[in-house]
Amino acid sequence: MYDIGRANLVAKAYDLEDVAIVPTKRARDIDDVDLTWKIDAVSLDYPLIAAPMDSVMSPATVITMGQLGGLGVLNLEGLWTRYEDPTSVFAKLAGITDPIEAVKTMQKVYAEPIKAELIDRRLSEIREAGVHFAGALSPKTVREYAPHVVKSGADFLVITGTSVSAQYVSSADDALDMKEFIHTLDIPVIVGGCVNYHTALHLMRAGAAGILVGFGGCARKATRDVLGIEVPMATAISDAAAARGDYLDESGGRYVAVIADGGISGSGDIAKALACGADAAMVGLPLARASEAPGLGYHWGPEVWHPTLVRGLREQLTTLASLEEILLGPSFVADGSMNLIGALRRTLASTGYTNVKSFQKAELILV
Amino acid sequence: MYDIGRANLVAKAYDLEDVAIVPTKRARDIDDVDLTWKIDAVSLDYPLIAAPMDSVMSPATVITMGQLGGLGVLNLEGLWTRYEDPTSVFAKLAGITDPIEAVKTMQKVYAEPIKAELIDRRLSEIREAGVHFAGALSPKTVREYAPHVVKSGADFLVITGTSVSAQYVSSADDALDMKEFIHTLDIPVIVGGCVNYHTALHLMRAGAAGILVGFGGCARKATRDVLGIEVPMATAISDAAAARGDYLDESGGRYVAVIADGGISGSGDIAKALACGADAAMVGLPLARASEAPGLGYHWGPEVWHPTLVRGLREQLTTLASLEEILLGPSFVADGSMNLIGALRRTLASTGYTNVKSFQKAELILV
Amino acid sequence: MYDIGRANLVAKAYDLEDVAIVPTKRARDIDDVDLTWKIDAVSLDYPLIAAPMDSVMSPATVITMGQLGGLGVLNLEGLWTRYEDPTSVFAKLAGITDPIEAVKTMQKVYAEPIKAELIDRRLSEIREAGVHFAGALSPKTVREYAPHVVKSGADFLVITGTSVSAQYVSSADDALDMKEFIHTLDIPVIVGGCVNYHTALHLMRAGAAGILVGFGGCARKATRDVLGIEVPMATAISDAAAARGDYLDESGGRYVAVIADGGISGSGDIAKALACGADAAMVGLPLARASEAPGLGYHWGPEVWHPTLVRGLREQLTTLASLEEILLGPSFVADGSMNLIGALRRTLASTGYTNVKSFQKAELILV
Amino acid sequence: MYDIGRANLVAKAYDLEDVAIVPTKRARDIDDVDLTWKIDAVSLDYPLIAAPMDSVMSPATVITMGQLGGLGVLNLEGLWTRYEDPTSVFAKLAGITDPIEAVKTMQKVYAEPIKAELIDRRLSEIREAGVHFAGALSPKTVREYAPHVVKSGADFLVITGTSVSAQYVSSADDALDMKEFIHTLDIPVIVGGCVNYHTALHLMRAGAAGILVGFGGCARKATRDVLGIEVPMATAISDAAAARGDYLDESGGRYVAVIADGGISGSGDIAKALACGADAAMVGLPLARASEAPGLGYHWGPEVWHPTLVRGLREQLTTLASLEEILLGPSFVADGSMNLIGALRRTLASTGYTNVKSFQKAELILV
Repeated sequence: MYDIGRANLVAKAYDLEDVAIVPTKRARDIDDVDLTWKIDAVSLDYPLIAAPMDSVMSPATVITMGQLGGLGVLNLEGLWTRYEDPTSVFAKLAGITDPIEAVKTMQKVYAEPIKAELIDRRLSEIREAGVHFAGALSPKTVREYAPHVVKSGADFLVITGTSVSAQYVSSADDALDMKEFIHTLDIPVIVGGCVNYHTALHLMRAGAAGILVGFGGCARKATRDVLGIEVPMATAISDAAAARGDYLDESGGRYVAVIADGGISGSGDIAKALACGADAAMVGLPLARASEAPGLGYHWGPEVWHPTLVRGLREQLTTLASLEEILLGPSFVADGSMNLIGALRRTLASTGYTNVKSFQKAELILV
Repeated sequence: MYDIGRANLVAKAYDLEDVAIVPTKRARDIDDVDLTWKIDAVSLDYPLIAAPMDSVMSPATVITMGQLGGLGVLNLEGLWTRYEDPTSVFAKLAGITDPIEAVKTMQKVYAEPIKAELIDRRLSEIREAGVHFAGALSPKTVREYAPHVVKSGADFLVITGTSVSAQYVSSADDALDMKEFIHTLDIPVIVGGCVNYHTALHLMRAGAAGILVGFGGCARKATRDVLGIEVPMATAISDAAAARGDYLDESGGRYVAVIADGGISGSGDIAKALACGADAAMVGLPLARASEAPGLGYHWGPEVWHPTLVRGLREQLTTLASLEEILLGPSFVADGSMNLIGALRRTLASTGYTNVKSFQKAELILV
Repeated sequence: MYDIGRANLVAKAYDLEDVAIVPTKRARDIDDVDLTWKIDAVSLDYPLIAAPMDSVMSPATVITMGQLGGLGVLNLEGLWTRYEDPTSVFAKLAGITDPIEAVKTMQKVYAEPIKAELIDRRLSEIREAGVHFAGALSPKTVREYAPHVVKSGADFLVITGTSVSAQYVSSADDALDMKEFIHTLDIPVIVGGCVNYHTALHLMRAGAAGILVGFGGCARKATRDVLGIEVPMATAISDAAAARGDYLDESGGRYVAVIADGGISGSGDIAKALACGADAAMVGLPLARASEAPGLGYHWGPEVWHPTLVRGLREQLTTLASLEEILLGPSFVADGSMNLIGALRRTLASTGYTNVKSFQKAELILV
Repeated sequence: MYDIGRANLVAKAYDLEDVAIVPTKRARDIDDVDLTWKIDAVSLDYPLIAAPMDSVMSPATVITMGQLGGLGVLNLEGLWTRYEDPTSVFAKLAGITDPIEAVKTMQKVYAEPIKAELIDRRLSEIREAGVHFAGALSPKTVREYAPHVVKSGADFLVITGTSVSAQYVSSADDALDMKEFIHTLDIPVIVGGCVNYHTALHLMRAGAAGILVGFGGCARKATRDVLGIEVPMATAISDAAAARGDYLDESGGRYVAVIADGGISGSGDIAKALACGADAAMVGLPLARASEAPGLGYHWGPEVWHPTLVRGLREQLTTLASLEEILLGPSFVADGSMNLIGALRRTLASTGYTNVKSFQKAELILV
């Protein structure tokens, strides 16, 4: 604890860039590394989930993601459930370079209401491809549209907001009781983002199959500038991993997945997130560079088009390679943006681990 | 304490950018957040005060500020009390882009004497609008012109300098005794800037209704470069908040407002300042971006035109939006420069607080 | 140890740029400084080894390096052992400025198989020059080609990979047992890179004459970005030096050279590496600026052309001066890139030491 | 102490930019501040000495410096003692913009031998102006030319090198015994630069009237890059101030001036150096911006033209104002580069001190 002044004693928090993984004295053969993981009843090839952001996941890329062994999540409050054919809307947004004009245009196009019928159609299109997938809703709409996700046969319902708290206290009488709500649902729920031990523990107690740790999307810097709120990811993940252990004990064996969501810029960060204790990572930006990405060279989350308090930045990206190359290689750049899974496999091998669970105990240092 | 060498043992001080607010496990509905605060007998809609800087506050913007629920302070040693019609002076300054030429021109235009008659006229013009307002003087002129502020019906007299100390020791015999002076005045006084516990406590004991913590204006970096003096704001506010508590105790219940003044670049910093213990924030730069701002795209404080020792920088700014949009939104940028009050309201809601007083206990971390 | 969150307690590691050497109260005459050192049975004029990178060492520059009193190491998996005459390949690579095209072209040209006959020819060409020299192989090829190095009369076999661990565990049955292998060889072995105490100690126990500490080459930043792995050099060297001492004790007097390999950008870093405890430094980049360097203005290691997981960056450099001037001066730049040996000599003199062994005890500070 | 690895336990050192001065609760009237100081028998108006660098001090600027109340030091190994009329040499150097060409040309022009006759002539020219002044020699030439300085009537002999140690050990038999040498001289000696407690103490014991703390000139960054040696100034000054106190005690009352020399970029740094414990500051760069400065827009020290190991950078500067304006104001810039003495006076007043001796006890913080 540090004394920042006579009235405040505070802890220091660390980011992924503040830590690094240290090799042990033992290395493993890369072919002996097994990256599969299980969340609820679903087994997946590797611990990477594509974020439910319009610039990353369309029905088509959710399918591709699943076919490549990962898990894609469709944003059910995005352009695909507001427009019959959003293609022209994406094209229009991609044609705007001025940041303020882009925000104002987004505020307009996202004012178009969500249609339940389009939710059904998008999800069933994915379902027919026979891959694992999930749909995402915010706390505000989840009661209305969750039944559509359940009936679609999705593997998971993702409930996500910038910050989803364990307790929502309102003088109005319509607050969502997460525990009660999750228990009424006939689908495993992944919920977040949460950023500290107590919220993580509470969401686990509420019955989540997985919790998202972090603010997600591209809202980190903006959340700090606009709200003054910030929780560096290494600390947030480590705290949530401790909550997982404590909940495992108190629940007599229920293991809830901790999914790092936010601030992950490439394969090195994915490895660090797991070494801090995460079971998987949810990423947006690295996948927004795919040639198939619907964002057409831009990347944004819902914070960017908030009608009264914009607190995220639309980012311009260079299209790099196919989604398959970004996930599975081969790579031709050295910045952690390609062959995300091959890189993770190599990190485990180089540092002496053969699966994610044991790798969560890897030695870290502050750099 | 850190040992910087064999002869010096020193404490570490922290800035607002070194800290961040951590969400708790509870969130509140944004409509349940109440930002009103009271200083002396005056109730205000939100804890934001516009700084008495010529680039920010004219009689017209003081009125607008008050109409929008805030508190504006007119600089009574600025161009509005030196010139019958300062409009052409502002225009002339806005036409100069070379920094050195700008300083030299300012040194000239501010050499024009202050006229008591103009002080009266400006203040009565504001008074007629029926809003809360204040007038600001420096220790050097306050004895001469304070009576004009009192008679104008202003809500507060602000006494401000780069650094106002609790004791001013001079071999000449004309030093201002703050305590004696404040007690003779028939108007509540806000005084500063002070930067440590002892000065804060002494100014409270001197009878101030509020104290300004920080160096104000845009003088932070220049004060360090020119004078070697610097007190990071998070530490300064925390120390002053501790003084407020100690004084509340020793005075048997007199609560003096701690107002953060300086180094606040946007809504995230306002939230952090309150979480460090401030009751309100005084801001200049964010409001200098308003289309109504008299600075016409420039921002400066009195340090910029000091006749012999310039120690502040005139800054060039981009005009962003109306004063109302900057204060109350909606925003279309994600950097904390718009919808300052909406952002603050959201920070409290997201982190589980419904009023400023309880929010002063929010958890902080070092980042 | 620092608590990065409830689940992780970690140590802080330091880089060469985090430390500096402090002068003592005594200075020495520069002519009294003796930089010679001994590794196994070989005495060398100064503790600098040229890295086995294609952009730095050709047969010709290995010879020049030896003639100038240092030790050059030829990469036996590089272009010189894949092509009869690699000159045109180097020229082709130098003609490509686009980074991605360069990587893809490298992936192609390095796909050409290694020829044992060319290994023999290159090494015998150097042997004829009568200088000290070494050849480098990776763990993957060392069993096949080591006999060629032995028979060539090289002074050392260097076994090097990004990270060479003490134990390599594989479900396949062909893993290299370093200890067994080294003992079968009739040549002293330098092996690495290792990055911590335990691996260093194990490699010493395996019979190495010297160990390389660090990731070598230009892979530092990319290893962090791609794999999340990083071990700052000051800490890595200090840990390896501690292992050297412990092994000296347990072996009853066997002194194994600790050679810093990676992150050394100029003469200041060489001095710091020795003061952290290294016996010598292996450098690439500073020598790639020589007019004789085969890289023709570019610098790269094998990580740059990895077929599936690129994790190093080809760097463009300005050719500065002859290899002799870079090593022995005189210098006409002040950034530590010229007169590497003269600078090291001066550092020892200025701080009061006359040989490397005593200089390893020089006082360091964190800056 | 910090553990950088298993073999090294090190202290943390701090720079002037790491610290700041904190105001106390008391302020003083600026007219009550007395900056005069005394070194040996000489009283000076303010604690600022102009560095003996060719780009700063010519016979003419030494005189101006003295007339303005400060102390100027002429470099007696510079162009003024090598050339009958160096004006054209300065002009030639100012005409070269390419850094490498500049270094090579300097190496040539400084190869011209020093002439004793020119030393006499330059010093007597200054002497005739009736101001306080000093002449500087390096340890290498001081035995030969010191008699010329003594006979000139200079107030001080400055013996300066990048790092002057307390003990110089050489197998050759001509090492300078500083103590013996100083005692033979009939002039007070200022000697340095030293960078730690023990060297400072030893130089005090050797009989110095003042010691220079720091590496001086513009060699800080280059010394780190080339030699790996660095001692941050706040720590170096604090340690030397502790040595001054200990020596005062052991000598029964001999007070040796501690003069900060190096890394001082403006008035804020001068104030910080004094607050760390220095009695005065020697500056070069801020004065090289004077219109009278002989460097004609460039600034360099002897490290820049070292014949074999260049370890300083010639810097290009913008000419700002007259020497008088830089020293005594008025200023029209806010970066600490003008009105150095006025700024120092204000720092003392603002923080509650009336003289340098008491100001050495000012409170510092780490920022």
